[in-house]
Amino acid sequence: TTDRDPLLLTPGPLTTSLRTKQAMLHDWGSWDSAFNRITADLCQRLLAIAHGEDSHVCVPLQGSGTFAVEAALGTLVPRDGKVLVPNNGAYCARILKILRYLGRAAVELPVAEDQPASAAAIEAALIADPTITHVAQVHCETGAGILNPLPEIAAAVARQGRRLIVDAMSTFGALDIDARTLPFDAVIAASGKCLEGVPGMGFVIVRRSALEAAAGNCHSLAMDLHDQWIYMQKTTQWRFTPPTHVVVALHAALEQ
Amino acid sequence: TTDRDPLLLTPGPLTTSLRTKQAMLHDWGSWDSAFNRITADLCQRLLAIAHGEDSHVCVPLQGSGTFAVEAALGTLVPRDGKVLVPNNGAYCARILKILRYLGRAAVELPVAEDQPASAAAIEAALIADPTITHVAQVHCETGAGILNPLPEIAAAVARQGRRLIVDAMSTFGALDIDARTLPFDAVIAASGKCLEGVPGMGFVIVRRSALEAAAGNCHSLAMDLHDQWIYMQKTTQWRFTPPTHVVVALHAALEQ
Repeated sequence: TTDRDPLLLTPGPLTTSLRTKQAMLHDWGSWDSAFNRITADLCQRLLAIAHGEDSHVCVPLQGSGTFAVEAALGTLVPRDGKVLVPNNGAYCARILKILRYLGRAAVELPVAEDQPASAAAIEAALIADPTITHVAQVHCETGAGILNPLPEIAAAVARQGRRLIVDAMSTFGALDIDARTLPFDAVIAASGKCLEGVPGMGFVIVRRSALEAAAGNCHSLAMDLHDQWIYMQKTTQWRFTPPTHVVVALHAALEQ
Repeated sequence: TTDRDPLLLTPGPLTTSLRTKQAMLHDWGSWDSAFNRITADLCQRLLAIAHGEDSHVCVPLQGSGTFAVEAALGTLVPRDGKVLVPNNGAYCARILKILRYLGRAAVELPVAEDQPASAAAIEAALIADPTITHVAQVHCETGAGILNPLPEIAAAVARQGRRLIVDAMSTFGALDIDARTLPFDAVIAASGKCLEGVPGMGFVIVRRSALEAAAGNCHSLAMDLHDQWIYMQKTTQWRFTPPTHVVVALHAALEQ
């Protein structure tokens, strides 16, 4: 029985409340207006967590968090873009791997695994290479638990007129990321981590103007966040079958 | 309460049994050996439905069915491949759209929306263009309900020495697809359709030799079925966080 389950203390998936799980005891049609209202409310709640209502939108995506990270990189970085990746752990290395798959130019900035990335080093790298268009920063590396100094990094990236993409998989909902004071184009997270939903969907809090400019960038139909957003605005529905039970479970988790 | 829910008669997601939904009242660690055994047993059961135990493997993938379709095309069709797409409906058109995103050459074979694809016309198209490497065939178009003659098409494709990829989203588990008699490289389906699980994962029944030859083809890390398969064989785990509750629900549905 559920109340005897061992607690999951892994980085995610983790133990969810009974109420969250019970939200999945109901089947939803993916075209039903009641389900679409849940999706819309869920996106508004996620956007509000990042205080992004005035500047950003929330685009959900089927799949794990890595799917959403790849989708954000593929959608927001133009084919001729170049991404600086401060690398102090496995998830930074995964971003570099994704960029190789996508054929996007990448510059690695090596950082010791037990040290946070340095805003000054990032700014120096941007000054040294004016062709870098984006910085992809993992907020907190799950393995070593190193928290990178996001406010300082965001300020440095903005000062140099570049764009910031943040993998906040292990922090979103637990540590504050405020779009009103911290300039970013995208913050990426997923249902089954700090928000205490069940795994199966990711989402990207993305600057509206950056998303509007991103038509045609993406290497993948399924991962095209611009296409997903346009379709959702037109129809209130997901483009392809949503993980309905995962969506309502995350919505229930946010209500609690 | 669940037993009063209206029946969902849409093509999917559809109404699942209470037992299937109750399987989601438990949280699973994605690294737990008990969960990994469920994944392995699930894949074996899916493979057995297609009678593919001797020739094929089953590779599951996070996301909707369309994610699995894109993954199969991106993984199995080499960068210099060319795909013939008999087109009698929306899901055929979606395959053509995916191939455009992927930069894979495609040849459309137009078919009237109320007519099945013709094995003879497909064979003639293959003879006319020896550079075509694959045929991507939707088994049954959900919209018009047209069932395409898969055994005849598979025989024609094999006779011409080309490879067959089948989108069986709306038929897998309901209509027989027998790998022992019907030559195909890939059959693609998803959890939330005829198998009566909840939506959130797809899977591909893929010829082992074709998958072994597919390293390096894929345009996407998240959708690389070769990489997913290699990792799963090594570790018994999914590469990236699996939709744990969706996996156990599909397993429970197959047990029923």
